[in-house]
Amino acid sequence: MNNSQQLFTQITSEGVLELSLKTVDIPSPKPHEVIVKIEAAPINPSDMWPMFGPADLREAKHDSEAQTTTAPVHPSMLPRIKSRLDQTLPIGNEGAGTVVAAGESAAAQALIGKTVGVLSGATYAQYCCVPLQACIVHNEGTVAKDAASSFVNPLTALGMVETMRLEGHTALVHTAAASSLGTMLNKICIAENVPLVNIVRKQQQVDMLKKLGAKYVIDSSSDTYKADLYKAIEETGATLAFDAIGGGELASDILTAMEQVGSKDAKGFNTYGSLTNKQVYIYGGLDFSPTVLNRAFGMTWSVGGWLLMRFLAKLSPERVGQLHKKVADEIKTTFASEFTDELSFEQAITPALMMQYNAKKTGEKYLINPTKK
Amino acid sequence: MNNSQQLFTQITSEGVLELSLKTVDIPSPKPHEVIVKIEAAPINPSDMWPMFGPADLREAKHDSEAQTTTAPVHPSMLPRIKSRLDQTLPIGNEGAGTVVAAGESAAAQALIGKTVGVLSGATYAQYCCVPLQACIVHNEGTVAKDAASSFVNPLTALGMVETMRLEGHTALVHTAAASSLGTMLNKICIAENVPLVNIVRKQQQVDMLKKLGAKYVIDSSSDTYKADLYKAIEETGATLAFDAIGGGELASDILTAMEQVGSKDAKGFNTYGSLTNKQVYIYGGLDFSPTVLNRAFGMTWSVGGWLLMRFLAKLSPERVGQLHKKVADEIKTTFASEFTDELSFEQAITPALMMQYNAKKTGEKYLINPTKK
Repeated sequence: MNNSQQLFTQITSEGVLELSLKTVDIPSPKPHEVIVKIEAAPINPSDMWPMFGPADLREAKHDSEAQTTTAPVHPSMLPRIKSRLDQTLPIGNEGAGTVVAAGESAAAQALIGKTVGVLSGATYAQYCCVPLQACIVHNEGTVAKDAASSFVNPLTALGMVETMRLEGHTALVHTAAASSLGTMLNKICIAENVPLVNIVRKQQQVDMLKKLGAKYVIDSSSDTYKADLYKAIEETGATLAFDAIGGGELASDILTAMEQVGSKDAKGFNTYGSLTNKQVYIYGGLDFSPTVLNRAFGMTWSVGGWLLMRFLAKLSPERVGQLHKKVADEIKTTFASEFTDELSFEQAITPALMMQYNAKKTGEKYLINPTKK
Repeated sequence: MNNSQQLFTQITSEGVLELSLKTVDIPSPKPHEVIVKIEAAPINPSDMWPMFGPADLREAKHDSEAQTTTAPVHPSMLPRIKSRLDQTLPIGNEGAGTVVAAGESAAAQALIGKTVGVLSGATYAQYCCVPLQACIVHNEGTVAKDAASSFVNPLTALGMVETMRLEGHTALVHTAAASSLGTMLNKICIAENVPLVNIVRKQQQVDMLKKLGAKYVIDSSSDTYKADLYKAIEETGATLAFDAIGGGELASDILTAMEQVGSKDAKGFNTYGSLTNKQVYIYGGLDFSPTVLNRAFGMTWSVGGWLLMRFLAKLSPERVGQLHKKVADEIKTTFASEFTDELSFEQAITPALMMQYNAKKTGEKYLINPTKK
C-alpha cells in the first residue's frame, strides 16, 4: 500500500475538461491524521460543479486506455472559472471507509480498523489522508456504505436547526424538501418538535413526506400554493427558511407570506412591515436563474447565502463533536441514505453514466466505490 | 394656545384618499414631554407613502372651504394597505421649532425657548407633543429651518457609518449618492477617512460630488460602469453597500464586483467564492421593480432591509446621545439641508404642488411651515 488510484479534474484555458484516473503516492500520516481506505463516496450535487464545471457533457468522450474523459467547455464560460484553469484538482467532498493507517498520536492510533465518514476534497480515491477532525467515527456494525453520506446532508440538516436556534427563530421552512436532506430534516424536526414547512413541487413528493410524518407539506405546483403557504407559516410561526432552489420567486414568496402573517393584525400605516426579522438562506442553486425579490415584505428581512462549512466554523469544537456523535448514533435511522447504484472509477467517468447522475433527479444518488472493478 | 391645526390622511375602504386640515386639542405634556411649536417640517420621500398611499394624484381635487383634498385609489391597491383603511392618521416624520411648554421634569423644563428638531409621526401640525428622547436640542443661533431635517437624513448617514464599524467593514458603497443624504455621507466619510464609493446616474451628479471632494464617483449610465465599479471596490476594499434604489440589478452588480475583487487571486475551484461577508442593505425603494440577484457572488453574501429606527434601537442611549450632539453641532455644515420652497398647510394639499414634490427630484425638497398663511 504505497500508492492510490485517484480521480482528478482539470479544465484547460483552451476550454477542455479532462477527468482522469491517476496513480499517486499515499502520504505518511502526520500525528493527528489517518489513512482511510475509501469504500463508498457519494456523488453529491455539490461535487458536480467542481467535477465538471460548465462542460458540455453531451459531447464527452471517454478513452478507456488512457483512463480519461474529455468534454468541451464553451470559451464564454472560461472567465467565470479562471481560478481553476490549467490545474489538476482532486474531487470528492465526502466518503467513508476503513482506517488502515494512522499517525503516531494515541487519538489517531485508536481509529485503526474503524469505519469512519470523512470530509475531504479528495475522496474519489482508493486512499485518503485526513485529519481527525474531518472524521466521524462510526459505531460497531456500521459499514462504509451506511456511512458514505455522514457529513454533507446530516450536518446540513442539523446545521439548519442549529441556525434556527442560534438566530432566535422557532420554526423552519425548507424548499426542495423531498431531497435526502429534506427527509433527514423532517426526521430531526419531528423528533425535536420543531415545526417544519416543507415546500415541494409534486403531489407524489407531498405523499412521500406525509407518509414520513410531515405535518406541513406545500405543493408549489398547486393552485392553492400561496394560500397554503400562508396558512402553514401562520400555524408554525416560521420566520426562517432554507432554500435549495435559489432562482425565481420562491424566496420572495416565502418572505411575502411571512410578512403577511406578521402584519395580519397591524393597524395604521405599517409602512415598514412587521418587526420580526424574516430570513431566507439560499444554500443551493437547483435553479440557476436570478433570484427575484418583490420586496413586498417590509424592511426587516434578509436573504443570503448559507454554507455548511462556514457555518460549522462558527460553532465550538465541543458542539461540533456532539453533532458528529449524533450522526454516528443515528446513521441508520435519521441519517440513512439510499443509493441508486454503485459505480467503479471507470463507470464514474463513462459519459452515459455521467449524464445520468449529473441530472440530479430527486431520489437518485450514486456512490463511487473504488474497490469495485 | 389650546388647540392646533394639523394635517391628517385617510384612505377609505371605498378607495378615496382624503387629506384634511383639522383642529385638534393640544395635550398636556407628561413629565418628560415637551410641546414644540413647529416652524419647519420637511416633506421627505419617507413621508409620501403614508401621506398619499397609492392614490392617483393626477385626479386629486382640492376643496378650499372644507380644507380637504381627495384623490382616488384603485380598488386593486386596497388589500396592500388594509392596515390603514378607514383611519384618520397623523403625518410628518420630522420637523423643528421652538419648545413652548414642557412637562414638570427639570430636563423638560430646561428646553423651554430652545430650538429642537423632533422625530414624531405628527409634525405636520402647529404644535407637536414629543418625549425628550425624540428631540435633538440645537445650539444658540440655530433656527427651525436649519434644524428641520435633524433626524432622518443626518442619523441615516451616521447610522450607515456606525453599521459599517459595528459589522466589521472598512469602506462603504452608496447608491443614489447625489441625494441630500448622500451629500451628508460624503462629508462624514471625508472627515473620518472612510473610503466611500458613490454610485450616481448622471455626469452632472458626478461633477457635483467631485466638487464636494468625493474621491470615488461611479456613473451607472457610463459605458465603463462595471469596470469603474470594480476598480473603486478594489481600491477601497468595500464589502458593505447601502442602496436607496432597491429595484433592478444594482445590488447584484455591487455584490458581483465585491466578489470579483475578493476572488481575484483565488486558485482552485473557488466554488463558494470569497470568505468575507458581502452585504447590501436596501434602505429605500426609488425603483419599485423587483430586486434581481444573479447570485454570481459565491455563498457569503447577504441582501436585506435596513431601517433607521430599527437600527437606532440597537444602540445604547449614550451612543444615540453622542450622535444627536454631533448633528446639533454640525447642523449648518455636515448636515446642512437646502429647501426648494416653503409651503403653507393649504399649499401642501394643493394638487399642483403635491404633484411637484411627490416627483422626488434629486436636489428638490419642500418644507411645510405651519406659521405661513
